Amino acid sequence: MSDAPRPLADLPIALDAMGGDRMPDAAVDGALQAAAAGLSVLLVGDRERLEATLRARGGDLPIEHAPDVIGMDDHASDVRRRKEASVVVATRLVKEGRASAVVSMGHSGATMASALLVLGRLPGVDRPAILANIPTKTGYCALIDAGANADCRPAWLQQFAVMGSVYARAFYDRAEPSVGLMSIGEEEGKGNELALAAHTLLKSTPGVRFHGNVEGRDLLAGTTDVVVTDGFTGNVMLKLAEGEAKVIFGLVRDALRSSWRAKIGGLLVKPALRSIADRLDPGTYGAQPLLGVAGYAFIGHGSADARAVRNAIQTAGRMIDAGVLDRITAGVAAIGEAEAAAQGAADGAA
Amino acid sequence: MSDAPRPLADLPIALDAMGGDRMPDAAVDGALQAAAAGLSVLLVGDRERLEATLRARGGDLPIEHAPDVIGMDDHASDVRRRKEASVVVATRLVKEGRASAVVSMGHSGATMASALLVLGRLPGVDRPAILANIPTKTGYCALIDAGANADCRPAWLQQFAVMGSVYARAFYDRAEPSVGLMSIGEEEGKGNELALAAHTLLKSTPGVRFHGNVEGRDLLAGTTDVVVTDGFTGNVMLKLAEGEAKVIFGLVRDALRSSWRAKIGGLLVKPALRSIADRLDPGTYGAQPLLGVAGYAFIGHGSADARAVRNAIQTAGRMIDAGVLDRITAGVAAIGEAEAAAQGAADGAA
Repeated sequence: MSDAPRPLADLPIALDAMGGDRMPDAAVDGALQAAAAGLSVLLVGDRERLEATLRARGGDLPIEHAPDVIGMDDHASDVRRRKEASVVVATRLVKEGRASAVVSMGHSGATMASALLVLGRLPGVDRPAILANIPTKTGYCALIDAGANADCRPAWLQQFAVMGSVYARAFYDRAEPSVGLMSIGEEEGKGNELALAAHTLLKSTPGVRFHGNVEGRDLLAGTTDVVVTDGFTGNVMLKLAEGEAKVIFGLVRDALRSSWRAKIGGLLVKPALRSIADRLDPGTYGAQPLLGVAGYAFIGHGSADARAVRNAIQTAGRMIDAGVLDRITAGVAAIGEAEAAAQGAADGAA
Repeated sequence: MSDAPRPLADLPIALDAMGGDRMPDAAVDGALQAAAAGLSVLLVGDRERLEATLRARGGDLPIEHAPDVIGMDDHASDVRRRKEASVVVATRLVKEGRASAVVSMGHSGATMASALLVLGRLPGVDRPAILANIPTKTGYCALIDAGANADCRPAWLQQFAVMGSVYARAFYDRAEPSVGLMSIGEEEGKGNELALAAHTLLKSTPGVRFHGNVEGRDLLAGTTDVVVTDGFTGNVMLKLAEGEAKVIFGLVRDALRSSWRAKIGGLLVKPALRSIADRLDPGTYGAQPLLGVAGYAFIGHGSADARAVRNAIQTAGRMIDAGVLDRITAGVAAIGEAEAAAQGAADGAA
């Protein structure tokens, strides 16, 4: 008999099948689609409801029973005492080596709190951060932190840069992804106190190809592969970017109904415009990884549909295959080593 | 003889005709358009060049000579020693009671520095702020601060709320404009330290109808008439919003050339889409007021064309007619009075 843990790739991905607006239906449908694509999924939630939903679809997936669910109006801190809530049970499966990742479309704060509480942080990471995939003119940009830490210290932004670079290397197939620091001017001397201090740190961070400051307009222009910022600015940007796309496409839709001429033209251009709207849809990636916790955790939109659930599970599978966690640990350790070496050189010179 | 200052409405608007990418041509054309619409404009810049430009157009406008111009690559602090630069001369005309407002499409930082140095602050205002008109789904939203102050204190945001409310009352014809505080969750307890502290102040600010927190998506949804935030977040939002509109319309343009079907449809829908692009164009308002300085000062895009210049001059005229400056002074004084009254009540109760 051996106690060696099974490789993550052999474990199922634990899906919180209860948290979210359209659950458990969207969870079950998305999980069945992901399973059909070859991924191993474990549904976590009320066994009776999940069995009934699976039966109605003629599908079959393993279930881990969790009698409780954290609702959208509950507090994130509820995860401390509600140990049988679906998101907590799903996270515990990762901790216990019975699942490779936890994916939840429920209460974002609760998913984050559960990951921090149950899994803890990776060594060398001060604060885990949410990474959002932002569709750009030319591809995608990794925005980090997209909302986990409202107030940040410069060293945290440095760690976000390392985590974002690891992610972009694995996901965007970039050997040396470029990292921009969000600020209010391209010049090094422009920005708030946090950005000024972070700029200095980022210039000498191992494993980070630092582009320098970027501005708001650079996010969708795709100027850099990664954009680093505090969780307040990042969350405002994420929601502004999503909201603006919605407003503009809404105005376009209205305009294409505004006259007979526009209506006829609208029928002809619909497929072309649809492809843009699809490309800018945040559902493409399904869920955002919480990077820096000691395990794979993914936070989805509460409004996720089956497609978003399937994509989230596939994103989780890709991250596990790429070994993102080990790479982050190595990358963050390199910051400490570089600092120690610089300190040693300074001591030697003194 | 009387020393009484002339009413502002009788004075010309001083236009820095040299600062900006397309100057002096765009300045002269825009000023002639504004003059044709009944506004009184004074061109500030190199007399010989301006006279030649006016001659070429067969137009006539008064000129104040300024031999120097602050370029886009110069430092904002240059305004201290370059007293004959066009933006400094134009601002001095306001200080001396010879012009009602200064409008510049040149170096934003220099225009701001010049206004602060020459005009100073209004009583009760700690920090002047830039107000940006953001086109929304339904109209406009006043975003303040859009970039003047990278690091802010809670009390400054309170003053921004008063200034934004005065502006929205005059410009959006709202008797009681609603004010949202930009944050990362609608609940009062969500946000960074600055937002949490500002929330408490905004709940009891006289003259401000406080809606509570808003999120990034609310800006273009038009949830509130005014959105208050620090100049770092505001500047990032402004540039993201402008940049995203540009990217989406660029993608739409490409999509409408992607096939014969799309090309034919594109010809039919062009007028309808053009009207949306126009509505979302930041050139509509031409320039952003710097609120809180003791005089009317407007900061435009460096890329401004004649239309943006004309609109900027017209915006200045409307603000002067609405007496925005006096209203801000009164509004900010009311904060101090309310605090004194609350302090008095607390002392009385003690």
